[in-house]
Amino acid sequence: MAKAYALGIDYGTNSVRALVVDCADGREAGTFVFDYPSGDQGILLDPKDPHLARQSPADYVVGLETSVSGALAAAEKERGFSRADVVGIGVDTTGSTPIPVDAKNRPLAFDPKWKASLAAQAWLWKDHTGAEEAAAITKAAAEHAPQYLAPIGGTYSSEWFWSKIWHCLKEAPDVFAAAHSWVELADYIPAVLAGISDPAKIQRCVCAAGHKAMYSDVWGGLPAKDFLKRLDPKLADLRERLYEKAHAADRPAGTLSQEWATKLGLREGLPIAMGAFDAHYGAVGSGVRSGTLVKIIGTSTCDCAVASTKERIRDVPGICGIVNGSIMPGYYGIEAGQSAVGDILKWWVEGVCKGDERQHAELSAEAAKLKPGQSGLVALDWNNGNRTILVDPLLTGLLVGQTLHTTRAEVYRALIEATAYGARAIIDRMSEYGVPIDRVVCCGGIAEKNALFMQIYADVIGHPMLIAGSPQTPALGSAISAAVLAGAHPSFEAAQQKMTALKEKRYTPNPAAKRVYDELYGVYRELHDSFGGVRGAKADFASLMKRLLAIRERETSH
Amino acid sequence: MAKAYALGIDYGTNSVRALVVDCADGREAGTFVFDYPSGDQGILLDPKDPHLARQSPADYVVGLETSVSGALAAAEKERGFSRADVVGIGVDTTGSTPIPVDAKNRPLAFDPKWKASLAAQAWLWKDHTGAEEAAAITKAAAEHAPQYLAPIGGTYSSEWFWSKIWHCLKEAPDVFAAAHSWVELADYIPAVLAGISDPAKIQRCVCAAGHKAMYSDVWGGLPAKDFLKRLDPKLADLRERLYEKAHAADRPAGTLSQEWATKLGLREGLPIAMGAFDAHYGAVGSGVRSGTLVKIIGTSTCDCAVASTKERIRDVPGICGIVNGSIMPGYYGIEAGQSAVGDILKWWVEGVCKGDERQHAELSAEAAKLKPGQSGLVALDWNNGNRTILVDPLLTGLLVGQTLHTTRAEVYRALIEATAYGARAIIDRMSEYGVPIDRVVCCGGIAEKNALFMQIYADVIGHPMLIAGSPQTPALGSAISAAVLAGAHPSFEAAQQKMTALKEKRYTPNPAAKRVYDELYGVYRELHDSFGGVRGAKADFASLMKRLLAIRERETSH
Repeated sequence: MAKAYALGIDYGTNSVRALVVDCADGREAGTFVFDYPSGDQGILLDPKDPHLARQSPADYVVGLETSVSGALAAAEKERGFSRADVVGIGVDTTGSTPIPVDAKNRPLAFDPKWKASLAAQAWLWKDHTGAEEAAAITKAAAEHAPQYLAPIGGTYSSEWFWSKIWHCLKEAPDVFAAAHSWVELADYIPAVLAGISDPAKIQRCVCAAGHKAMYSDVWGGLPAKDFLKRLDPKLADLRERLYEKAHAADRPAGTLSQEWATKLGLREGLPIAMGAFDAHYGAVGSGVRSGTLVKIIGTSTCDCAVASTKERIRDVPGICGIVNGSIMPGYYGIEAGQSAVGDILKWWVEGVCKGDERQHAELSAEAAKLKPGQSGLVALDWNNGNRTILVDPLLTGLLVGQTLHTTRAEVYRALIEATAYGARAIIDRMSEYGVPIDRVVCCGGIAEKNALFMQIYADVIGHPMLIAGSPQTPALGSAISAAVLAGAHPSFEAAQQKMTALKEKRYTPNPAAKRVYDELYGVYRELHDSFGGVRGAKADFASLMKRLLAIRERETSH
Repeated sequence: MAKAYALGIDYGTNSVRALVVDCADGREAGTFVFDYPSGDQGILLDPKDPHLARQSPADYVVGLETSVSGALAAAEKERGFSRADVVGIGVDTTGSTPIPVDAKNRPLAFDPKWKASLAAQAWLWKDHTGAEEAAAITKAAAEHAPQYLAPIGGTYSSEWFWSKIWHCLKEAPDVFAAAHSWVELADYIPAVLAGISDPAKIQRCVCAAGHKAMYSDVWGGLPAKDFLKRLDPKLADLRERLYEKAHAADRPAGTLSQEWATKLGLREGLPIAMGAFDAHYGAVGSGVRSGTLVKIIGTSTCDCAVASTKERIRDVPGICGIVNGSIMPGYYGIEAGQSAVGDILKWWVEGVCKGDERQHAELSAEAAKLKPGQSGLVALDWNNGNRTILVDPLLTGLLVGQTLHTTRAEVYRALIEATAYGARAIIDRMSEYGVPIDRVVCCGGIAEKNALFMQIYADVIGHPMLIAGSPQTPALGSAISAAVLAGAHPSFEAAQQKMTALKEKRYTPNPAAKRVYDELYGVYRELHDSFGGVRGAKADFASLMKRLLAIRERETSH
């Protein structure tokens, strides 16, 4: 086989990274990171509104050329690499991050008239200004089109496509009026590379469409005009200028334009893979397959799984999204998540204990000396609400079992355990609804650095906890998509087998710890179901504290 | 009126304090504190058993002479005082603190044979070695003599008389066999001063007997021999060597012996008032009367109220004790308490936040900037179980409502509020059962120093929070008892009017804050009743977090 390299380009929240990957084995030949120059670490903020988070589309375009050129230059330092060996390009981005564009697919923000308008920029995934609109969309859909909500877990989010666009229409109607169309960042970058100057010709990925824009082939694409008219007639008009069809990554988004081929020193006409969200291509780069849950563990988590489209699966209540082809062609992409994981530990260590990185390590070491059940504590991991399986941002934290001797390390451990129980609730829910999970592959700094965290997860969940081999799984997944598209591998599965790996370190459940955690998970579910408003929740609170004390006594003494 | 002074002697946990008080106005003429020299701050410990806490009876006797001599010497520095003007002596002590004595009323510990035996020392109130015995006594009484439990809240404690003596019988049968009788410290000191050398002649106070030894005139004194025989026949035998009758402070415990008159330079034959527990005479010194709750706020609280014996009162479920005459003659003494108050704040500031005194002040200042409801938090104050009104040591803490932004000051405030809710639950319970409370008089460092704490209590409870004028209310109360006995005042009520005062600073409820706290107290009671196992508890946990968020939103915005 001739030398073949694929380019993976990963647009994160603060920077863009390009990766040149050897298609034979997934090895990194070169990489380069470009930090977005605008705003606060790349994010445009409004001091008057903490919910606002925008980005400059110009940063994306400058970053595209800089990161790819940098990665190619780095790859050229190694023997045998040549730009001529690059066979395809893949792109992943944050999302939902829609950008208002004109009729020539130019971001409005490029126009001097709109340059200073925050509404004319890219609406970053974590922009929450559309909270009211999200609630109104959920309400309208629940009444008039409940089918739209079923595959997205029952609640439309302020972080998603329609909430943002509708909010723009209300808050900045001039920007809305000036926008010919809106394009997700994941679709925009491939279109830039392909030189597509008509929004109608952009290939839209089903990953953004299905998970964030209530798109489904089942009801003929985006929400019906009649439904959008209920929200605002102007949204119904916009529908015609968006797209009719969205696609899985089983077709190209385009081919490299002459302009960008020249800029990057690559061959014109190179195949460009469909864009996708970072979590989805990250799952591909982590080796997602039937039975595997990929957990990207950071401040929050994004959990991805796939299920073959050969089998029909039901909607899974409380799971954010189930979209045909959103992660890999031929599979339903299933997305879930926990609203706060690293963030809860950070809150405890930095916010409450006023500690730093070193204290994370100290508390971790102290907490590691405790046996399961020994702290007598159980917590709910809801300091930032619950994304899955309750889909309720209006939930808060709870801690029970503290005495006058409870230590900060015990609370630290209880909070890790709480997030592990939350993770188990997601896996149990998937399994109950026909998506059985038997291994968990994790990505992110916590997975690589915090052995206590990973062992607790293994013991609570009862499956091996594995770590993705690459620290850059989204970029790697993008490159895999490009490699498949270019024919370097016959399928995603085949490409994953060659191009992805796991780290040697794995965490296996300890049966004795698992037994204690099964008991404690029962306590967690009593609290979870009761305080989470689950219909028919069962709990015996009168005995709960006594049971925790008895477990503590038992586990401390033997 | 001729000059008249009364001596009050207060045996605390770590030291004994003597106070010379002017009977005319309660003014301190002299005081002296003696720290017990033995053990760790006066407490004999066993490194193998954290539940053990004993004291050396010799420390008590040496402390008696030293503290009284010191206080008299101090009083002599002021013009016009003469030892000849001392008209009576009163004593209060910790309890239940029983001491094994021989047939001549000498503590066994004075005998070289038993000097080294921990079981032969005084069993300090906070000794918990008799936990199993306490449970067995509760069980036996519940089955065979439920009347014994009714006035003590339904549960016999490991801190009390019979648990300790029975534990001694099991663990150190030789000490038990050598003991002719057992005497509460509150009865022992007056007997020493009076030179009583026959345990049968000691005047036993109803305060220790009724609250700690299941004594009541209703069933003929101490528990029946048949009942004690169920526990151990040797306890039944001991009953005969204890006492038939216990008394309120409407009679003398004795008169000053020649020996002690000489030692102290006081007149032989001076009247000695009945001893009592520190909390009870502390209530007297704080101006307790019908409608007043005296709260001694320290690591935990002791709450005392009185109700005239002219009115029949029912047993109050969950209240530790209702004993005729235990606080003042002519009144039922009603005792309740919270297992942890200062201790919970100490746990948070020192145990979790690793702070010091200064940080208590800083957190207090920061918490004072918050409005009621603004933290979004509600806690249960059960880190050390619940003494009143649930009488359940096997309860633990709970905190709900935390987000990623919750600060340590918010938790600090929530914990103060939790203890205030606990205080309100006690007051509400008393009022429901015919002991209405309309003002609260507080003693202790927290009451004098922490304005935030006091204002929160006023706002939660809805009654003025007052502060006792004297920082030494137990010693003052003892002196009042002595003054009444000596005829310096015709009654306790008259003596209190002259000899007690309140500090000028008082905390009045803020109606707006009270309204918010009424709502939050409702949330507290949902948690309290459900997790506390109250029959028929009502709660709506599915909405609880949302209600707290809504209150927070509302109170933050206006």
